[in-house]
Amino acid sequence: MAETHQAHQHSYIANNNKDAYLKRLRRIEGQARGLQRMVEEEQYCIDILTQISAMTKALEAVALGLLDEHLAHCVVDAVKAGGEEKQIKLKEASDAIARLVRS
Amino acid sequence: MAETHQAHQHSYIANNNKDAYLKRLRRIEGQARGLQRMVEEEQYCIDILTQISAMTKALEAVALGLLDEHLAHCVVDAVKAGGEEKQIKLKEASDAIARLVRS
Amino acid sequence: MAETHQAHQHSYIANNNKDAYLKRLRRIEGQARGLQRMVEEEQYCIDILTQISAMTKALEAVALGLLDEHLAHCVVDAVKAGGEEKQIKLKEASDAIARLVRS
Amino acid sequence: MAETHQAHQHSYIANNNKDAYLKRLRRIEGQARGLQRMVEEEQYCIDILTQISAMTKALEAVALGLLDEHLAHCVVDAVKAGGEEKQIKLKEASDAIARLVRS
Repeated sequence: MAETHQAHQHSYIANNNKDAYLKRLRRIEGQARGLQRMVEEEQYCIDILTQISAMTKALEAVALGLLDEHLAHCVVDAVKAGGEEKQIKLKEASDAIARLVRS
Repeated sequence: MAETHQAHQHSYIANNNKDAYLKRLRRIEGQARGLQRMVEEEQYCIDILTQISAMTKALEAVALGLLDEHLAHCVVDAVKAGGEEKQIKLKEASDAIARLVRS
Repeated sequence: MAETHQAHQHSYIANNNKDAYLKRLRRIEGQARGLQRMVEEEQYCIDILTQISAMTKALEAVALGLLDEHLAHCVVDAVKAGGEEKQIKLKEASDAIARLVRS
Repeated sequence: MAETHQAHQHSYIANNNKDAYLKRLRRIEGQARGLQRMVEEEQYCIDILTQISAMTKALEAVALGLLDEHLAHCVVDAVKAGGEEKQIKLKEASDAIARLVRS
């Protein structure tokens, strides 16, 4: 039972990266607050747009990191398990990649 | 003096959209906190990636809104002023658009 | 009549950049043929994807170049003309920017 | 020997999708020629930009299709093979995904 759970543990936890992701997401939350302050203080549009581009890139980097670990762990495990599990996990990963490429 | 300031007021303020932008940015900040909770609770990678795509789209929509108003007000005013001011504002807008397209 | 036409000439022509754009687009057409050769010769997927990313970047650069000139000429002229023409051209430019950012 | 080659066959060939990809790439080449004609005939910037967005989306769809098959075949085979081959293929796929997301 414990092993089954182990097998399904998410890769960002298995790899002890949970804290690193939380830290990056807190920084992104800080950027979202910074944007509100810029609007509140009526700062220049172009400077706000520059901050939005930086924040988008930070989010993209988190997404690519999570996706890498997902492929290297959850998808790899599903491939080894084979059958329907393999098909489901590959389809899920493809759909997530398509959403990232299009967003 | 007051008129000079008036002339330089940013479009998102001139149009009484400040509150609307603040509201959208607060929601984006909430999404950033939601992502931290998902990692904290060890939720599934693919669900986290879906939320990141949604947040990226929300940020993109704010950026496109600010850019529209910037073109329709600051850039239009600079075009009317002409000369160096016009060149600077057009270059700034082009650079901001390129950053958005590439981010 | 001739002057009306002159006034509506597109910026990439007015600036003698027509040949430069044609040259860049011919190179992009060459990249599209190169991709077919890669598939024909059964080359490695990852190498094909690398070429697609390069081609997408080349297309993006052409789009940003055309957009810059469009803003600096057609949109500037429409702003000077004012009225409905100004509104239409600004809306058109915003929509084109949104399509680029989302594609 | 023949079997070794078989094992390394690329997924878009193994799946008899070679013709479908060639057809899509020929259409993309046609779009590149169409863009040249639009510039040659001095058509309106915004219409050219609309065509570029359509072409970018078509390229993106080809890339996502190839990537899906690459994951479902080459990467799956490498995972089964294990060891260094697995690591190399996962790293290659991650890098290709990052280039697509950023382009």
